[in-house]
Amino acid sequence: MNTQVIVLNGGSSSGKTGISRCLQAILPTPWITLGVDDLVARLPPSLTASGSGIAIGERGEVEVGAEFRRIESAWTAGIAAMARAGARVIIDDVFLGGGASQERTRGRLAGLEVLWAGVRCEAETAAARELARGDRVVGMAAAQADSVHEGVVYDVEVDSAKSEALDCARAIAALVN
Amino acid sequence: MNTQVIVLNGGSSSGKTGISRCLQAILPTPWITLGVDDLVARLPPSLTASGSGIAIGERGEVEVGAEFRRIESAWTAGIAAMARAGARVIIDDVFLGGGASQERTRGRLAGLEVLWAGVRCEAETAAARELARGDRVVGMAAAQADSVHEGVVYDVEVDSAKSEALDCARAIAALVN
Amino acid sequence: MNTQVIVLNGGSSSGKTGISRCLQAILPTPWITLGVDDLVARLPPSLTASGSGIAIGERGEVEVGAEFRRIESAWTAGIAAMARAGARVIIDDVFLGGGASQERTRGRLAGLEVLWAGVRCEAETAAARELARGDRVVGMAAAQADSVHEGVVYDVEVDSAKSEALDCARAIAALVN
Amino acid sequence: MNTQVIVLNGGSSSGKTGISRCLQAILPTPWITLGVDDLVARLPPSLTASGSGIAIGERGEVEVGAEFRRIESAWTAGIAAMARAGARVIIDDVFLGGGASQERTRGRLAGLEVLWAGVRCEAETAAARELARGDRVVGMAAAQADSVHEGVVYDVEVDSAKSEALDCARAIAALVN
Repeated sequence: MNTQVIVLNGGSSSGKTGISRCLQAILPTPWITLGVDDLVARLPPSLTASGSGIAIGERGEVEVGAEFRRIESAWTAGIAAMARAGARVIIDDVFLGGGASQERTRGRLAGLEVLWAGVRCEAETAAARELARGDRVVGMAAAQADSVHEGVVYDVEVDSAKSEALDCARAIAALVN
Repeated sequence: MNTQVIVLNGGSSSGKTGISRCLQAILPTPWITLGVDDLVARLPPSLTASGSGIAIGERGEVEVGAEFRRIESAWTAGIAAMARAGARVIIDDVFLGGGASQERTRGRLAGLEVLWAGVRCEAETAAARELARGDRVVGMAAAQADSVHEGVVYDVEVDSAKSEALDCARAIAALVN
Repeated sequence: MNTQVIVLNGGSSSGKTGISRCLQAILPTPWITLGVDDLVARLPPSLTASGSGIAIGERGEVEVGAEFRRIESAWTAGIAAMARAGARVIIDDVFLGGGASQERTRGRLAGLEVLWAGVRCEAETAAARELARGDRVVGMAAAQADSVHEGVVYDVEVDSAKSEALDCARAIAALVN
Repeated sequence: MNTQVIVLNGGSSSGKTGISRCLQAILPTPWITLGVDDLVARLPPSLTASGSGIAIGERGEVEVGAEFRRIESAWTAGIAAMARAGARVIIDDVFLGGGASQERTRGRLAGLEVLWAGVRCEAETAAARELARGDRVVGMAAAQADSVHEGVVYDVEVDSAKSEALDCARAIAALVN
């Protein structure tokens, strides 16, 4: 069966977006990309500055409330429906809960052929890139670098601290059917 | 039954995005926004520069190919699924085919409580705003100003050339259950 | 003597940037635009979150420290030098100190032919546009709407709440030699 | 004498912006950044699509006309004036003419204490990063990777293909007085 969804999981500033763009450029069929950052960018102001939504603390810690969880669940159900309707989708995600987040996502993508890709980047390098980007709260990269991979099972893992985004994309693309 | 989807239809530079942000700010429950621009931004490079995807000509004319249509259909099916799963969604759209586009969208949103809102802005004003934005191909605004409304039936219509975005949003919000 | 610098002064969300882009589009010779927002975007992180730099409070109040003032003074001296060297420059500014800010700017632009343009937008409309933009701290627009014009003397004044940006630009362009 | 200007020269997608942000973060005194990309972003539409301005061809080749040269000269004179007035400035540049561009820039910065830093990134890696960015015409990176360094004399050279931006910034910062 052909791959219908690619899930890229990695911490903030681990390089998922660059890998995602390279995947779009090298895969022979069209893939669209959607990530948790897109959802956050589309939320109302009431949910990006409150306990029930999503908030980023001064040291980069992410706090997620019940209302955000509820909407995120519907969002992922929608992405699954896009894939079932024939759009190939690369999901750019951050499993804040590690293996438990993967299980939740797996349930929502039930029946779809999913390729699980882990994007590693050791904390010090991710933190350095976060500084170079200049548009993220400093601390997120280090806080998430390892924790988002705990208990997660992958089909393929890449390391953006050791390989360019394009090479990481090639390693993932090799497993796409 | 409560409103589950708000569809804002209007030409390029008619002010839909601003109205959409105001709606998010004033509606008492959380709404997420998703539009055709989001889809276009998420396409692979192969579909934004070819006959099968979507291309914008030198005078702002939009050409849409079969592969774009196929993916857009899956995209809208996904948004419908998000709404069915409990996320309230504002869709920011451009009905290039007027009434026919509305019928297609209506079919994909079947079973959902939809509020159809038309965002008017006469061609000259939309063209002036297109120039002031500086990030759109000049000509799109004028080309789409009237044609996107042909044969479309609305629950509410606003005119962004005559009222501020916030006032337009208030007129729409008054009909949201 | 030909106009060498156009200074647009107005509060946050009064529409200066749109007017500036329209001026670039309609003026017969090339003009570059530079504004205080460009300077703020080019500051090091140490100056955008501290007492000596520039900080924006929760209600949109702007606090400016000694080190920011020092760098801003050098920045304006540099823009004046660009104009003296033959580049026509539109300066997009916010006179937080009203007439006193104008005097300071006038001194730095000494010897240049300057057109002073006031961009008015009454507080309620500016606040509504601030909400529609979604990328500014709510409160700045209302706080600055009137105060930035106190004691300032203009060659031309436009009102973006009553006219489109393009029409405002035309009124200003009519005075450019 | 203290360093007043840092010139970073490197091809498109060689990583200058990231290094520049890291320099701002680690240097003990405030530095502002300004680059040729800022100038291009501030030009009127008439100069970004014509023979007298600056145009980027389909394969990433950059063509520069007389009017652009004239304005760029005034722009650099202005940056020099900022530095003379006490603002420390990091200039992010692309010496399309190699050594000849450096000589021209050196003349405009006369009397200032300048640190010349070369940012190397071999063509294949720069091209891969260009793809991952997704916002540049493909071909620029490879075309400029070597040519911009021909005949240029540096105080320090870094290689962003071999070191992270933060490490490159540290090597440059070590020479700042």
